Amino acid sequence: MHPDTLLALSKRLADFAQERDWAQFHSPKNLASALVVEAGELLEPFQWLTEAQSRSLSSEQLAAVTDEMADVLLYLVQLANALQVDLPKAAHEKVTRNEQRYPVEKAKGRSTKHDAL
Amino acid sequence: MHPDTLLALSKRLADFAQERDWAQFHSPKNLASALVVEAGELLEPFQWLTEAQSRSLSSEQLAAVTDEMADVLLYLVQLANALQVDLPKAAHEKVTRNEQRYPVEKAKGRSTKHDAL
Amino acid sequence: MHPDTLLALSKRLADFAQERDWAQFHSPKNLASALVVEAGELLEPFQWLTEAQSRSLSSEQLAAVTDEMADVLLYLVQLANALQVDLPKAAHEKVTRNEQRYPVEKAKGRSTKHDAL
Amino acid sequence: MHPDTLLALSKRLADFAQERDWAQFHSPKNLASALVVEAGELLEPFQWLTEAQSRSLSSEQLAAVTDEMADVLLYLVQLANALQVDLPKAAHEKVTRNEQRYPVEKAKGRSTKHDAL
Repeated sequence: MHPDTLLALSKRLADFAQERDWAQFHSPKNLASALVVEAGELLEPFQWLTEAQSRSLSSEQLAAVTDEMADVLLYLVQLANALQVDLPKAAHEKVTRNEQRYPVEKAKGRSTKHDAL
Repeated sequence: MHPDTLLALSKRLADFAQERDWAQFHSPKNLASALVVEAGELLEPFQWLTEAQSRSLSSEQLAAVTDEMADVLLYLVQLANALQVDLPKAAHEKVTRNEQRYPVEKAKGRSTKHDAL
Repeated sequence: MHPDTLLALSKRLADFAQERDWAQFHSPKNLASALVVEAGELLEPFQWLTEAQSRSLSSEQLAAVTDEMADVLLYLVQLANALQVDLPKAAHEKVTRNEQRYPVEKAKGRSTKHDAL
Repeated sequence: MHPDTLLALSKRLADFAQERDWAQFHSPKNLASALVVEAGELLEPFQWLTEAQSRSLSSEQLAAVTDEMADVLLYLVQLANALQVDLPKAAHEKVTRNEQRYPVEKAKGRSTKHDAL
């Protein structure tokens, strides 16, 4: 059973980096770079798939994608550590803002960006 | 006070998308695309900063970066929803694997990739 | 009439940066960061489109995409300048390698990666 | 000797894709995805380097980076083919616009974005 809180992950990654003396490499700039690199690797298996195919990955494809998703999350949490950002707070506040920017009656069934709704 | 679990965020985002009938747009391929777009936006404020400058952002820069970090997390959680991936499990398993691939005695103070350690 | 050579673009951009004393910002690391940021911006208009929709952009969408494509090319050429890379040579050599890795009889009509063909 | 024009590259890539019947995969959406994936791979070798280190790559690092730069250019040219975009024209027009947005007297020695100059 794995703990589901971002705080648990955050603490584990802080220990991991400290034991390896990696704070010197983990500038926010570098962590943001590593994150986009992993995000690109996450997109890679999808690039030639149709949307329909992307909805029914093989177990092998899913394992590869899951691994890249983990990498993205790990760098995101480490970036939050480095910048002392409260990630759950930021995420929930953004959902609240999106609820306001995309009211159901206007946004239902439309992929239009909020500033063009 | 915001809940700190990924499950709470996952449920909230599932409701958000369902109310807006957005499942049709939220193919894994599209969500992975949206994620890398946000990851690029997250890197943008850092691109001309030195690493030292990236460690001491202005409050304005930090707010912008925090907003992009939230976006990355929201798409990641939505992608996990779409693919039924257990994100906390995947993350903790990846940390465990990294602990094995980067043993302290070899990796301390070095940014070398595991396959070149 | 615009010159079609990468050398002409390279010279123009070298002058542009020199006049503004921007070499200090234009480390290869920073230019590669700027390039991926622009590549993300290039993907942004496509993220919720179907593939079919992406084949018939409005003139407004096409103008936005063209602008981002230009940005990607400008950073790529500036990175080539910074690293003294012969970009046309590298590109043609890569096509030659792809011709070998993707022989017509094996690759026809298939999006499989070369190492899985 | 490799031709230096984007048109030569464009024609060669159009032939390459046609022989392999790849137009079906090469929707603009997919090509833009492939491009950002390659841009991420291009950033990867730089992510833990200092800016100074990125200015003096080993020949091995430079070869890897050059290969990724070629990939970025190949997808960019293929995207231009798919969208019938005149890439040299777009690039030169963007430089002209940047010359106006970043006048030497204001932009010299500063990395500030044009809308904040």
